[in-house]
Amino acid sequence: MSDPTDNHREPNATTPPEADGSRSSDEADEFTVTPYAVSGEVNYDKLVARFGAAELTDEQITRFPDHPLLRRRTFYAGRDVDDYLAAAGAGDPHAVVTGRGPSGPMHLGHVLPLYLAKRFQRETGATVYVPLSDDEKFLAKEQSFASIGEHTRENLRDILAVGFDPARTRIVIDTADADVLYPIAVRLAKHLTPATVEAVYGEQDTVGLQFYPAVQATHLLLPQLVAGRQPTLVPIAVDQDPHVRVCRDVAAKEALPVRKPGALLGRFLPSLAGPGKMSSSGDAPSIELTDDPETVAETIHTHAYTGGRPTLEDHREKGGDPTVDVPFQYLRYFFEPDDDELERIAAAYRAGDLLSGDLKDLAIERITDFLAAHQRRRNALDELATELEPYRLTDEERRRALDSAGVPSVVGV
Amino acid sequence: MSDPTDNHREPNATTPPEADGSRSSDEADEFTVTPYAVSGEVNYDKLVARFGAAELTDEQITRFPDHPLLRRRTFYAGRDVDDYLAAAGAGDPHAVVTGRGPSGPMHLGHVLPLYLAKRFQRETGATVYVPLSDDEKFLAKEQSFASIGEHTRENLRDILAVGFDPARTRIVIDTADADVLYPIAVRLAKHLTPATVEAVYGEQDTVGLQFYPAVQATHLLLPQLVAGRQPTLVPIAVDQDPHVRVCRDVAAKEALPVRKPGALLGRFLPSLAGPGKMSSSGDAPSIELTDDPETVAETIHTHAYTGGRPTLEDHREKGGDPTVDVPFQYLRYFFEPDDDELERIAAAYRAGDLLSGDLKDLAIERITDFLAAHQRRRNALDELATELEPYRLTDEERRRALDSAGVPSVVGV
Repeated sequence: MSDPTDNHREPNATTPPEADGSRSSDEADEFTVTPYAVSGEVNYDKLVARFGAAELTDEQITRFPDHPLLRRRTFYAGRDVDDYLAAAGAGDPHAVVTGRGPSGPMHLGHVLPLYLAKRFQRETGATVYVPLSDDEKFLAKEQSFASIGEHTRENLRDILAVGFDPARTRIVIDTADADVLYPIAVRLAKHLTPATVEAVYGEQDTVGLQFYPAVQATHLLLPQLVAGRQPTLVPIAVDQDPHVRVCRDVAAKEALPVRKPGALLGRFLPSLAGPGKMSSSGDAPSIELTDDPETVAETIHTHAYTGGRPTLEDHREKGGDPTVDVPFQYLRYFFEPDDDELERIAAAYRAGDLLSGDLKDLAIERITDFLAAHQRRRNALDELATELEPYRLTDEERRRALDSAGVPSVVGV
Repeated sequence: MSDPTDNHREPNATTPPEADGSRSSDEADEFTVTPYAVSGEVNYDKLVARFGAAELTDEQITRFPDHPLLRRRTFYAGRDVDDYLAAAGAGDPHAVVTGRGPSGPMHLGHVLPLYLAKRFQRETGATVYVPLSDDEKFLAKEQSFASIGEHTRENLRDILAVGFDPARTRIVIDTADADVLYPIAVRLAKHLTPATVEAVYGEQDTVGLQFYPAVQATHLLLPQLVAGRQPTLVPIAVDQDPHVRVCRDVAAKEALPVRKPGALLGRFLPSLAGPGKMSSSGDAPSIELTDDPETVAETIHTHAYTGGRPTLEDHREKGGDPTVDVPFQYLRYFFEPDDDELERIAAAYRAGDLLSGDLKDLAIERITDFLAAHQRRRNALDELATELEPYRLTDEERRRALDSAGVPSVVGV
C-alpha cells in the first residue's frame, strides 16, 4: 500500500474516472485522482465527497493522539474513524496498517506516516502492521526480484529504525510471508471480479497485477485475522482510498470475522519541486533517509520550490507566500510541532522579514536533526534477519490468521 | 492440473475455439476442445495437428517403460518427448508432473496416470511431482476451503497409497506450499497477460482464476527449479495441452534456467455412461477408489455402457462391439496388460461367445483386485502429516527453487 506521502505515482496506468463508480457524471471536475494517476489541481473537499468518506471533525482530531499531521489536517478525512477512536480511547484492541512498496530507497515523505503510526502505538497501544509489497513492485516496475529484494532490505532497516514496539508490531513481506498471505488472498479473490479491479486500479498488463488487489486486501485484514475483530485504521493518501473500499467490499462478501477496515485520508505532500508537481518519479530529487546533512542542505537549497519573491527588495516589501513554500510546508506537516512557533515563522515570512534562504535553513536544521536520530537508530541495527525476527508473524499467528480466514491446515501443521 | 482421465469437465467456462489461437479458421470442425469444455465427437488426429503437437511414433512408444496406457495409445501424442526419453534412457535426471484438483473423492480414472508415473519412476528413476491445486478448486467450485481441505486430505491418502518412492517424489499443495509457489508464480506472472489467459482458459469470473495459470505454470517448472534443468513430461488429457503451452511460453519469456516442459497427451477415458458422454460431473456415477467390491459390481452392472446387442439371441448371432464397450475399454486402458489375452477377449465378444454380463464380470474382477491392493496400502497409512512429511519439499529445496526462479530471500532464511 502506498503511503500518503508517496510522490512517485505510477506513470503507466490510468483509469477513466467514470470507471471508479464514485464520481457523479454531472460534475465538471478539472482533476482526476485514481490510485495510479493524479492530474490537475486537486480539490480535497470534492475528493472526499466523491469517495463517500467524511471530513474529520474537530472533536475527532482532539481524540487522536496529538500530532501535527492531524492537528494541521494533512490527514483531513476518513472512514469509520469513530470506531477506531472509541477502541483506542477505551484501551480496546485497535490496529493501524501502513505499508511500503519497496521499489527504491525510502524518502523523507515515505517515513512520516510510520512515525505517526509509532505515535499512535505509543499513546494508545495500537498494533501496527507494516506490509511490504515486493510482489507488486516486481510486477509493476522494470526491476528484477534481486533489485526489489535489495530495496526491500534497505527499506526494512528504515522501518526498523522508526523504533516500533516489537510486541505490538508486525512487519510482513509479501514474498517472504506468502505462506499466510497467498491462501488468504485466494479466499478474498473468490468474489473479487476483474470488473471491480479494473474499475478501481485500471486495466492491468499482467495477471499478477490483476490478482494483487486481493493481496493488498489481505494486508488490511491481517491484524484482525491474527488477533480478532477490532477497528483498523489505514492512513493513506486520499487517492488510495479505493484500495480500502475494495477490501471493505470483499471482507463483507466473504463474511469474514472482521470489521471493515477504516481509513485516515491524507493530502498529497508536495515534492521539493512544489505543489501540484508530483506527477511521476524523477521530476525532482527527494531527501533520502540516508542522506548526510550536506546532501540535505544541498538538495533543499538547489531544488526546493519557495514562496519567496524574485528579488530581495520585492520580498522585503511584499513578503513571501508560505502556503506554496515547500520548506515551510515541511515544517508545517511534521518538523515544527509548536503551532505558535509555526505561526510566528509564517507571519515573518509573509511580512518579508524572513527570507526564503532563512526558511530553507530552518527546514534543513529540523530535517537534519530528525534524520540524525533516525540514522543513529538505523546504524545501530544488527544483522537484518536478527533484527526483523521479533517483528515477524509467529507460527501461531500464521495459523490463527489462516484459521480465521477459513483456510484450514491441510497437512496438520 | 487435471489428469487425462478426468471425466468431470467444468460446465461453467467455455472458450470460443478461435480464441485458442491454434485453430485454423478454414477447418470446418464439428468438435470443440478447450481446457474447460469438450463438445462433439473428438477427432484426435485433428486435435494434435491443431495444437501443434506430434503423434507418438512406434519407436518412441518402445522407448517408454512398457505400459498399456502407452502401448495401446491412450497416450498417443506429445511434445518434446524425445528429450525426455533420451534422459530417461541415459539415466540422466528427468521428471514427470501429474497433478490433482481436489474438489471431490478420487475416482478410478484419476489414479491411473499416477500409477503410470509410478511405473516411470520405478523403471527409469523419474522424479515425480504431484501438485494439488486446492486454490484453483476453491476458486472454481461452490465449496468452502474447509470442504476442499477435506477432499485434499482424502485425495492425499490415495496419492500416498500409489506407493511412490519418497526419495524421488514431491507432493505439493498450493495453499500449504504457497511460501515457494506464490513468489515463483509472481515471477512467471510478470509477463503473463490477461489476453493470453483469456485465450487459453476463457474469460474468468474472479481475479483468483485469472492468476491461477501462473501457479499452474509454476507446478510444471518446479522439478527443474528445485533440481536443475532436465526434461519434464506432463501426462495430461489432450484438452489440457494449452496449459502446458502457457507454461512453455512464460518460461521462455522469463529466461528461467529450465527447459520448456514436454507433454504426453492422452485421449479422454469414457465415463461409465459411454464414449462421447463425458460432458459434466454427475452424469454417471464413477468408481471411487474407496468403493468396496459390492459397490464396484453394482455400479458397473447398473451403469456401464456396453457394446452388446439388445437381446441374447441377437448378441449370440451378431456379436458385440468392444470399441464402445466401457468394461472392455477399462481392460484395454489399464486392467488387462496382456495383449494376446485382450485380443482373445475382444474376439470372443465380437463372435458373440462372450456376453456383456461376462465382460462386466471380468472388468469387475480386475478392478476389484486393483482396488483391493490400493485400499490395502491406503488403510495401512498412518496419520496423514506423518506419512506426507517425506514427500514434502525440504527447506533446502524450497530455497533452491526460489533461488533458481530469481526470487532471493529477503530475510536471509
